[in-house]
This record gives sequence, C-alpha cells and structure tokens, in this order.
Amino acid sequence: MKGPAPRQMKGPAPRRRGRRPGGEDTRGAIVAAARTVFATKGYEAATVRGIARAAGVDPRLVHHYYASKEEIFVEAMDFPVLPTLVIAPAVEQGTDGIGERMVRVFFSVWDGPEQRERVIALLGSAMTSPQAARMLREFIAREIMVRVAAALGVPDPQLRVELAAAQMIGVAVVRYVVKVEPLASAPVEQLVPLLAPTLQRYLTGDPAGGDTAPR
Amino acid sequence: MKGPAPRQMKGPAPRRRGRRPGGEDTRGAIVAAARTVFATKGYEAATVRGIARAAGVDPRLVHHYYASKEEIFVEAMDFPVLPTLVIAPAVEQGTDGIGERMVRVFFSVWDGPEQRERVIALLGSAMTSPQAARMLREFIAREIMVRVAAALGVPDPQLRVELAAAQMIGVAVVRYVVKVEPLASAPVEQLVPLLAPTLQRYLTGDPAGGDTAPR
Repeated sequence: MKGPAPRQMKGPAPRRRGRRPGGEDTRGAIVAAARTVFATKGYEAATVRGIARAAGVDPRLVHHYYASKEEIFVEAMDFPVLPTLVIAPAVEQGTDGIGERMVRVFFSVWDGPEQRERVIALLGSAMTSPQAARMLREFIAREIMVRVAAALGVPDPQLRVELAAAQMIGVAVVRYVVKVEPLASAPVEQLVPLLAPTLQRYLTGDPAGGDTAPR
Repeated sequence: MKGPAPRQMKGPAPRRRGRRPGGEDTRGAIVAAARTVFATKGYEAATVRGIARAAGVDPRLVHHYYASKEEIFVEAMDFPVLPTLVIAPAVEQGTDGIGERMVRVFFSVWDGPEQRERVIALLGSAMTSPQAARMLREFIAREIMVRVAAALGVPDPQLRVELAAAQMIGVAVVRYVVKVEPLASAPVEQLVPLLAPTLQRYLTGDPAGGDTAPR
C-alpha cells in the first residue's frame, strides 16, 4: 500500500457516533471522492492521500474525520458497522466457542430491519457491478479475512474463514433477500445452535465439529 | 394449486435437450407469457392453464412442450438445470453420504463458466426485484425444499435444508460474484471434504457431523 499508513482503530470510534456530526460539507466531499477513488482503483490501491487529493482537501483533514481507510470505506459503502470493531472481540477471546461468537456477531450486525436493507443493497451492488464486487472483495480480504485467519491455527485458514463467511452470507440471502420460510422468520436463538458448530468446525477444524468427511 | 396437475418428470427430459428445438415461435410465446404470469401471480398461484391463456394457446400445446409448471419456470428463468432432476438422485440414495452428494450436485450445476453467469443473474434479479425474489422463493419452497425435507428424518427438516442451501448459495456468492480468493479458485475436490460434513449435519443431524453446539 502506498501513501501514509492509516492509523488502526482499536477501540470504539467516537468520531463515527451520529453520522456526520459536523463539517457536513467537507465529510460529504471526502466520502464522494472516496467512492470514486475506491471504484476506480479498488480498495487495495486506494490511499488516504489519494482520496484527499480527489476531494481537494489536506490529508490531515481526512485523518481528522476518519481514523483509517477502513473507516472511510465503511462510511462510503454505507456498511452497517465497522467490521474490525465487531470481529476483534469475537477473535480475541480465542478459538474456544469462536463459532458461536461469530454467528452472534453476524446476526447482531444485520438482523435489524434497517441493517437488512443495507446488507441487501451491498450484496445487490456486488451482484450487478464488477467494480463494486472488486471493492468489496479487496476490503474483505484485507480488513476481515487476514485478521480472522491470523487468529486461527488451522491449515488453509483463509479458505476456512471464507466458507464460514459464505455460510452466513447465504443465510442473509435466504433470510433477508429471497425470504424463504421458515428461515426468514426463525428466531436467532433457534439458528445459533444450528450454525455455531458449522463455523466452529471451519474456523478451528475441531474434531468434535466433525472435520472428517462422511463416507 | 388450481388447474390440471402438471405431469411430474421422473427421468431425463429429452424435450429440453437443445433449447427450443422446434416450434420456436410458440415456445417463445409460452415462455414470454409465463414470465408475465409468474411475475404477476408468483410461482404458487400460476397454473399451466393460466399461462396457456396468457399465451393465447391451448393448454395441451403447453403440455406438449413442457411436462410441468416446473419445466416452464426453469426455462422462463433460464435456470441452468431442472432442480428435481439433479436433486432426486442425491436424495433417493438415502441419507448416508447425502451431504457429499448434495455438495457435488451444487457444483455440477453451477461450476461452469456459463452456468456461473446464470446463477449470478438469478441471484442479482432476486436482490433487486421483490417480484423475482417472490417467484424464486415460491419455486424453491414447492419444488426443492418440500422434496428434500420429505426424504429426511430430522426435526425442522425445512429449516435444515435451507441452512444447507444457504451454505451453498453463500459459496456461490463468494466464489462467483465477489470472487474472494482462495475460495474463488479452489478446486472442487478441495471444497467437497470441507463442505460435505456441514450439509451432512444439517440434513441428517448426524452426531458424527457435530450436531452438539460447542461450549
């Protein structure tokens, strides 16, 4: 990655509380420029400096509003939540019970009416726009997959993280988009014990999770 | 369902080999009318008779070209394959190894370049059109879920079938649409042993598949 390394956000992000609290125009200009830069260059090659240049502002001003490239992306794409913020706690507690924690993270992020719409919009844009798919792909790879995979001690950690993510993305498609019953209306507490062992097995290869293929 | 019960297709469908071999105009009119009827009434309430009426042809002519409402829908929606045709063999062999067979069915249906595009188009239309989502939902419920669920002996069979389908749909989204590596390029033979135990556990509740949630 070129340009100054964005600061990594560790704790909650007070800047993000209440969307665009002040400097509405400047933030709007940064976000609009960011959308163009991400669409043109992808997530990987985009830099805070490049976004600042496109917005016609000083990079320090961008850093004033956003702690990282991830934060700009999350606002530009209208993500329901900052991924690292919810993923870090689930990962940092170790692999014991990580499957259930990750399932709960997913549902906490997108099982509200407003979040559902954003998830649908995000998936829809990836379906219909190769540019959007590329941005999402690079963002997921850099900000999510690498972090979760690094916390695991299994072979092919990235592939396993993606299969776990695929399970939950598929649940989102069937539950929120196509809305097939009974999954569309099943309470989260009914789904957690069914889904948790799946993610546990992918993420840890736990033999109790049945990591041997049946005949 | 009103109207004459469509014949169920058991074996391969010679009619469908080579798309629209003859009677191009008539078949085209039937398919066009079917798209309108399915979009207006949904899959459940649509009938062969109603489609014939909308196309301005005799219902017997529709039956001449299509053995069932399912077949018309599959052609109208440009499905890559007739679902019951590939699902039946996987289910009829019993629950032993059904997870692996179902994983292989999914990949056989959509892991070619041309099929991928159709799957993406289908998912994309469901994302962006509530009508398309409804058609797909009703079709999946009636033609796929009921059949697979009936073959299983577990509690909540429909929910489990949907979780299995969600896993594979999510794989399709990550692999074909968002194209996150390494899942995008992983050979099917690497994915089958990872995915088969997941589907096996959902479909049979097999304790060897780890049906107990980890702490």
